[in-house]
Amino acid sequence: MADSISFSRGAPSADIVDVEGLKQAAVRAFENDPAGVTGYGTAIGYVPLRRLIADKHGVPEDHVLVTNGSMQADAFLFDEVVGKGDAVVTERPTYDRTLLGLRERGADVHLVGLQEDGIDIDELRGLLEGGLRPTLAHVIPNFQNPGGSTLSLEKRRALLALAEQYGFLIFEDDPYVDVRFTGESLPRMLELDAPEGSTTPKNVVYACSFSKTVCPGVRVGYLVGNPELIAKIQRRATNTYISPSQVSQAIVYEFVSSDRFPAALQNVKDALAERAGTLGTALREHLPEATFVQPEGGYFLWVSLPEGKGHDCAKIAKEAADRGVQIVKGTDFLIEGGENAFRLAYSAVKAEQIDEGVRRLAEAVHAAKG
Amino acid sequence: MADSISFSRGAPSADIVDVEGLKQAAVRAFENDPAGVTGYGTAIGYVPLRRLIADKHGVPEDHVLVTNGSMQADAFLFDEVVGKGDAVVTERPTYDRTLLGLRERGADVHLVGLQEDGIDIDELRGLLEGGLRPTLAHVIPNFQNPGGSTLSLEKRRALLALAEQYGFLIFEDDPYVDVRFTGESLPRMLELDAPEGSTTPKNVVYACSFSKTVCPGVRVGYLVGNPELIAKIQRRATNTYISPSQVSQAIVYEFVSSDRFPAALQNVKDALAERAGTLGTALREHLPEATFVQPEGGYFLWVSLPEGKGHDCAKIAKEAADRGVQIVKGTDFLIEGGENAFRLAYSAVKAEQIDEGVRRLAEAVHAAKG
Repeated sequence: MADSISFSRGAPSADIVDVEGLKQAAVRAFENDPAGVTGYGTAIGYVPLRRLIADKHGVPEDHVLVTNGSMQADAFLFDEVVGKGDAVVTERPTYDRTLLGLRERGADVHLVGLQEDGIDIDELRGLLEGGLRPTLAHVIPNFQNPGGSTLSLEKRRALLALAEQYGFLIFEDDPYVDVRFTGESLPRMLELDAPEGSTTPKNVVYACSFSKTVCPGVRVGYLVGNPELIAKIQRRATNTYISPSQVSQAIVYEFVSSDRFPAALQNVKDALAERAGTLGTALREHLPEATFVQPEGGYFLWVSLPEGKGHDCAKIAKEAADRGVQIVKGTDFLIEGGENAFRLAYSAVKAEQIDEGVRRLAEAVHAAKG
Repeated sequence: MADSISFSRGAPSADIVDVEGLKQAAVRAFENDPAGVTGYGTAIGYVPLRRLIADKHGVPEDHVLVTNGSMQADAFLFDEVVGKGDAVVTERPTYDRTLLGLRERGADVHLVGLQEDGIDIDELRGLLEGGLRPTLAHVIPNFQNPGGSTLSLEKRRALLALAEQYGFLIFEDDPYVDVRFTGESLPRMLELDAPEGSTTPKNVVYACSFSKTVCPGVRVGYLVGNPELIAKIQRRATNTYISPSQVSQAIVYEFVSSDRFPAALQNVKDALAERAGTLGTALREHLPEATFVQPEGGYFLWVSLPEGKGHDCAKIAKEAADRGVQIVKGTDFLIEGGENAFRLAYSAVKAEQIDEGVRRLAEAVHAAKG
């Protein structure tokens, strides 16, 4: 079989991780704070890192809780606020693990369509006017996984207004925000939600991660929100694992606060920009019938093939795998539908492999139809 | 107030952690396996560390799952096997966080007395003969927290026989096994439970941790058990946090497999032996009415004062705190009783502080009665 080319996993390739910088950060962590790094911490997280995160978001420290990766943050939050049978809104399509986590907790999940500028506010408003009373609405506002779209400022404000009117919590799940490589950043709903003169959000809880800016292996994510909610989740985290790894968190702290970090992050963004650009070009050339949004950041590109043409992403994925190319089926991100779609992650594919990968993928699309 | 002397927290003092060795291990981790350390791992744990643990216990790798500290291992196991209303047996007294974790899951907890040689098998047999059908029996076999006692070989075999006869799982929770500083090690129930010619336990699942042998800040613990149970918990762990910190696990792997580790562990054991010895001597001198088991390992010494003499550990703890001495009340480890008892952790108190700490504690005991 030809060389394997994976468009499947949302992870950075090792060549864009600053391993030397992380090694130096580890040495500084043990030298600068030996007792803090090696001792038991608490569930709030490593104190200097928590402070750095609070400063970044302009909130008091009691608004922040650091977790063992941001999926653990999701799990704590869901355990805290989502009861069996509770209505929850997510985007359609959305991150498969989020769907799984919600369904495992017995949530009544309502998927609302995703457009180029984010969740379909009119569809959501219709559901709310029709009587739906969600506990939580989960939204990935930047470079959505898998859809790739970014929630517009207008829609951010509209969503906040709906949350206020109907009394639900917006879970702003934002792991990709800091790997924007083109275009302009938008304000977080976390910030937009705080009343005049306050930094405390009313209806937003925010999650982010260092997986995309530092590396996944550190498993460091965090939540920002109302301090009462954070305190409840802190108790839950204490009773689950005492604390996330102090060693990992201290390494992240030393790395992110070092002089090397801005250049390391720029290197990640440059590589992602090149990969996304090459992928878009290759798709236009080899698979012109596909439609997609050219990403401004993040890891993913969502490809739709024309509807009603008999495309079946399961067959396509199989044919692609036979050609050494891995993709993720659109149906994995939806409760129904998605047969004509698939997700391509460009984060782990070197630019020089992309054209070849898409060439084989186009063959697979045609073979799957035949 | 006089200098603070804490007998409260089960943690090593920073001076007995080999920070230099850990720093060197971190450098090797990033140099030897940059992609493995920085990338996403899987919920089974960092592969070389999992292999090292499997080798240590003489089991295939699929019997092992590495977790974010061993309390996380407990949480996954409880979520997997303990349903609401299920009967669970624990020792009386036992680790307060275990009791909390079981009660939060709605378990029907039955506490069985702890003797100098471990759980009271006759009392447990009586409960079983009386119709109790526990899902799980939680036992801390070595240097029990808080009781300090070690389960004898005879009782290990008796407990295994009861598990086989009545069909319950023994949760062998063994964080202190490798910090034995005197006396002879006993075989694990994990090993005793495997049928002739097999390494797979029938009714035992085993948890351990590197918190006591490396340091708590790494948050690395693990489970060993039947591969079907381990696979179920792996799915749960994947859906909770993808994986524990790869960085932390790789540092533990490099440290534990290095030439420095045996001496570092001996240093920990020597310090604990000195602290435990000094504490026993000081108690005999300053608080002769107290009874306790002189520990052969671990972190804790459980002190009982004569019953029926009006001792109240809450008052004693308060009087001790007024004198700058922290202890944990006996009642924290029990559902009822324990007023005449308290737990002293000697792991974090330097030998030269111990005599002074016990002198003040004796004053507190007398003041609390007056």
